[in-house]
Amino acid sequence: TAPCGGHGRRGHTMDKSITLPPDEIFRNLANAKRFAIDIVAKVRSFDHATKASSDKLYEISVQEEVTPRLHFIKFENAYIETCLDFIKDHLVNTETKDIKATVDKEDEMTCLIKGCNFVLKNIPHEAFVYAKHADSEFRFQTTQPDIFPYLLVNIGSGVSIVKVESEDNFERIGGSSIGGGTFWGLGALLTKTKRFDELLQLASKGQHTSVDMLVKDIYGGSYASLGLTGDLIASSFGKSATADREFSKEDMSKSLLHMISNDIGQLACLYAKLHNLSRVYFGGFFIRGHPVTMHTITYSINFFTKGEVQALFLRHEGYLGAIGAFLKGAEKDNPNQYSWGENYAGSSGLMSVSPDMNPMQRARSGTFDMLEMDRLERQLVNLPLLLDPSSYVPDTVDLTEDALAREYWLYCFEEALDGVVKRAVASQPDTQEAAERAEKFSQKYRHKLQTLRHQPFAYGSLTVRSLLDTREHCLNEFNFPDPYSKFGFEEAKQQLEAWKPCLWLSDLWCFLFQGPPHKCALFFVDNKLLFRGTEVVLASNSGPALNDVTNGELQILTERLAAMDPVIETGLRDERLTLVQSGSSSPCLDLSRLDKELAMVVRERQTDLVIIEGMGRAIHTNYYAMFSCESLKMAVIKNAWLADRLGGKLFSVVFKYEVPSEKPSQPSAALTRS
Amino acid sequence: TAPCGGHGRRGHTMDKSITLPPDEIFRNLANAKRFAIDIVAKVRSFDHATKASSDKLYEISVQEEVTPRLHFIKFENAYIETCLDFIKDHLVNTETKDIKATVDKEDEMTCLIKGCNFVLKNIPHEAFVYAKHADSEFRFQTTQPDIFPYLLVNIGSGVSIVKVESEDNFERIGGSSIGGGTFWGLGALLTKTKRFDELLQLASKGQHTSVDMLVKDIYGGSYASLGLTGDLIASSFGKSATADREFSKEDMSKSLLHMISNDIGQLACLYAKLHNLSRVYFGGFFIRGHPVTMHTITYSINFFTKGEVQALFLRHEGYLGAIGAFLKGAEKDNPNQYSWGENYAGSSGLMSVSPDMNPMQRARSGTFDMLEMDRLERQLVNLPLLLDPSSYVPDTVDLTEDALAREYWLYCFEEALDGVVKRAVASQPDTQEAAERAEKFSQKYRHKLQTLRHQPFAYGSLTVRSLLDTREHCLNEFNFPDPYSKFGFEEAKQQLEAWKPCLWLSDLWCFLFQGPPHKCALFFVDNKLLFRGTEVVLASNSGPALNDVTNGELQILTERLAAMDPVIETGLRDERLTLVQSGSSSPCLDLSRLDKELAMVVRERQTDLVIIEGMGRAIHTNYYAMFSCESLKMAVIKNAWLADRLGGKLFSVVFKYEVPSEKPSQPSAALTRS
Repeated sequence: TAPCGGHGRRGHTMDKSITLPPDEIFRNLANAKRFAIDIVAKVRSFDHATKASSDKLYEISVQEEVTPRLHFIKFENAYIETCLDFIKDHLVNTETKDIKATVDKEDEMTCLIKGCNFVLKNIPHEAFVYAKHADSEFRFQTTQPDIFPYLLVNIGSGVSIVKVESEDNFERIGGSSIGGGTFWGLGALLTKTKRFDELLQLASKGQHTSVDMLVKDIYGGSYASLGLTGDLIASSFGKSATADREFSKEDMSKSLLHMISNDIGQLACLYAKLHNLSRVYFGGFFIRGHPVTMHTITYSINFFTKGEVQALFLRHEGYLGAIGAFLKGAEKDNPNQYSWGENYAGSSGLMSVSPDMNPMQRARSGTFDMLEMDRLERQLVNLPLLLDPSSYVPDTVDLTEDALAREYWLYCFEEALDGVVKRAVASQPDTQEAAERAEKFSQKYRHKLQTLRHQPFAYGSLTVRSLLDTREHCLNEFNFPDPYSKFGFEEAKQQLEAWKPCLWLSDLWCFLFQGPPHKCALFFVDNKLLFRGTEVVLASNSGPALNDVTNGELQILTERLAAMDPVIETGLRDERLTLVQSGSSSPCLDLSRLDKELAMVVRERQTDLVIIEGMGRAIHTNYYAMFSCESLKMAVIKNAWLADRLGGKLFSVVFKYEVPSEKPSQPSAALTRS
Repeated sequence: TAPCGGHGRRGHTMDKSITLPPDEIFRNLANAKRFAIDIVAKVRSFDHATKASSDKLYEISVQEEVTPRLHFIKFENAYIETCLDFIKDHLVNTETKDIKATVDKEDEMTCLIKGCNFVLKNIPHEAFVYAKHADSEFRFQTTQPDIFPYLLVNIGSGVSIVKVESEDNFERIGGSSIGGGTFWGLGALLTKTKRFDELLQLASKGQHTSVDMLVKDIYGGSYASLGLTGDLIASSFGKSATADREFSKEDMSKSLLHMISNDIGQLACLYAKLHNLSRVYFGGFFIRGHPVTMHTITYSINFFTKGEVQALFLRHEGYLGAIGAFLKGAEKDNPNQYSWGENYAGSSGLMSVSPDMNPMQRARSGTFDMLEMDRLERQLVNLPLLLDPSSYVPDTVDLTEDALAREYWLYCFEEALDGVVKRAVASQPDTQEAAERAEKFSQKYRHKLQTLRHQPFAYGSLTVRSLLDTREHCLNEFNFPDPYSKFGFEEAKQQLEAWKPCLWLSDLWCFLFQGPPHKCALFFVDNKLLFRGTEVVLASNSGPALNDVTNGELQILTERLAAMDPVIETGLRDERLTLVQSGSSSPCLDLSRLDKELAMVVRERQTDLVIIEGMGRAIHTNYYAMFSCESLKMAVIKNAWLADRLGGKLFSVVFKYEVPSEKPSQPSAALTRS
């Protein structure tokens, strides 16, 4: 497969996905092996700077914004002409500024490592452990603040074992000629089957024990004094040395697969031990999504390290080289000033590897696969007040593990879809084809939800946050950047009345102000704005998400309030009230990916109170987050199912107030009233 | 091949070799895999206790002596019935006391390690480095006083990697299923060739580059930034993955061999590094004398350790299991009270592996091979006065390296053979078939010399000492334990006159007695007996060798002298003159294999002078030996060629007197007079 990157608008329509015909096969372009194209395209935004009307409290003028995006398409060489045609037809004659083609074989390993560093740093739940017989096939790893050092075992034709110590410092410490090419080459000679995937298919059906000589074949049972079990392979292909019979293609393929996987597993373990490395990532075409090779490698690593080292795989392993090639070309751009996020709308996600996988999906897996990364024009960092950044997990419930919750939320989001479509259309009343685009959005998101029902692990851990993000990404994909832009105050008021908003805020204030005053409070707001007292940092979204207030809106709003309220005016003037964008565009909150400036302000102000408010920020995420200072999480439970699950009633109010102790402790207080 | 041990007399004749018909093939005995038989047989000695006659200075009564010997025969399973028949016909109904059959599969590894420890400790030049393109194929390692710790890589069907830390302490730290069975099994599937040796033959003729994908096949040249040369194998069998053509059996076999050898080499290196072991021995049927596998393993180890670790092979690797099985059975005998020596007459020796090897010898290599070990009823230890036991090498010239010297000495021993035969016959005047046996001895020794001409490395390093030992062993094999037993004083006197014995002893005495008196002098005597002064330890041979005096003879002789000489009488009574056997039965002297009692006496007496006398002990061996006390080496050069080589005349006298300094130094004095 040849990874290829490209992104742009398709003709005159506004949907930006590249649709390659997966069922159309072209001739081989033998010499073309890999090329990465980086195209920076403008996302058209909408100017809502219309006149103020009586039913609108405020009007926001959104600047046209450039959203750079990396778009990688991975497809078989057979599709290279389709791709080139697409580029010629759609990209070359547009206003696209820059086409980069990187054909730099010398730096293959550098690109690979750069790509690996990139996905490990920027894509949450990038790495996973594969467990064939576990409830969920994949167990995703939380992104660590420091990804170094690690061992990368790249299994292409041969094997390269690379120790990566920092962004620019890596060394090939070992390798082996027994790799994917050996499986393919020996497999082809033994079975006359020339296709790699077919060989793997054969292997998945075979019995290695009819070809391999086991310990019990030699000793009648285990060889206890040496710690060898009877089922251990004593000699790969040992039975074919002397037996005078035919061996099936399936059995030989399986034996070959075991032989190669076990060997690589042992080598990887030895190099990991020798260099004292505990994180070992496996990649290369031998691994790439193939369950049977992931399984044998995992088994081998468990065997040789007695569980001390885990075999880790990467969701986007197939893109590492192309990503690295792009990054290498983009080095002059100072990549450190950016952050990146996976765009769930434009990325295919991880395929199911179970045998009962949707055949259509399986067909796609063999043809092409996509990854889109949105570039955020800011650095995202940990909230400095997190008690232990390395163990912080934003999401409260992992829906890949909680099947009941998954079912509910997928149903929930599907049910809400029509409402979202209506709101999206309503947000662009002057645009002719809004309804058509909204319908496309609806199809796409519905399809995503269906996919996630069968492959919850497609984008790593499935959470309410990722479901919300996916919806935002799909809306954005069809140019509905802010469906709530026409969401008026009267509408909001009606909703608030439906939720029976109680006077819980005064209760909270009484509770908080019992003790000595805080130096500075950090308040993550959602769609309810409130502040009182002095020294408050209001952190709001950088981009739109549902009807949550954005930092831009909050600025205008605060200025208007200041004109009415002298307390707010003084606060703003004395910088005792500060508005900072959070770096997020989600109704949820990932405290490990916050705007660097917010982190700086938090540190400067010696913040000693964190307030997180709203269901998305305080319940779906961060409910279990621990801070080094006092914290308050509060939300109205606006969902009957969740209220039931939490043992309360709909529209109950959750307060979770915690004071840190030396060790991470139990919550000091958790109030619920309805 | 199934190693099998057995030793005994053949019918009524006195030659003790088992002659299995190597060209007779029997049916397979499928289930019989290995059995070790240990038979202790009596070596008949001759009682020379006849009456004293006027021409004999002394008469020695030699007790009938039991010489236990281990006799291993290694042969293909095809010969198992021949062997069983032989046992039934020749051994079961004789007076043989004890037949042990060890069929103890559980202890295979224990036996292997025991056997390995045994050969490393007891057989000089057991381990060697293999160098395909060097002047001499094999470079033998000096036996180290401490053989532990080491790594044993046993490549049978699979691979076991065992760390051996002491006699009883070993651990299988790793292994691999890619071993000899994989070469054989995959080779059989790929080439339809079912015989292991044929596969190796195919491999030795193949070109792996037509099947393997090299670094240059991928990158056009080297991959310099990763330190990979263009010729490095990137992917074993990588070319057969996509190429649509046939591959030759030879090329596939070669590629397979490289694949497996390189893999084992890398694993061995990694385990050696991880456990900080510098000595790595390779064994198992994959290695067993096969030059092509020794070469690829050596190459691989050099590649992976950059020369830091050497691949070591064992001359008797194929016997380890059988030796271990024997030793395990003999544990109640307290094996520590014995020492062992390789019997050159009864051992086949290492085969040449060069392609122009004698076809007859090659045929034998495929059929059977023998090893005989003589058990000495004493422990052999280092002389405590050796300056550095670990660097001590007894032999002055290694004839495997010095081709000119080798040619001369082989010629010399061949020329002397008729004389030895005559003396042997003369030593048994009353025995009818002595002439017939002597002729057999002659044939055998001549054959040995011829073999050594073509395979000087057959028994490790070839030396004058080993040539002498081989002759003694062959004589003994045909029951001529002491050809010089009839060697009279008159005959000796004539020889002495021929050598123009000069009055060098008085010169020596003057020289030695210039300084303060020594506490104790250790005198290694050959066939000239002399002592003077006080506190003298006379070390003489334990068994006969040429006309050298044995300890037994010296005892009788000294008693007779004491009766004539009051100085000697007082010396013996006051224990100022002590006679101790050296532990040797050779005209030469290996100071690393001395009787333990001698070492004890040397230590107790605070010996401060070592005198080594005679060509065998002071020129052929020990000429360069360094001591921690004063030493004197002296000899009459009774050989024109050697005199010429040393730059002197025939019958020159060599004195080499050395006083040790802090560091090993140059000789302080070396006198030569003729």
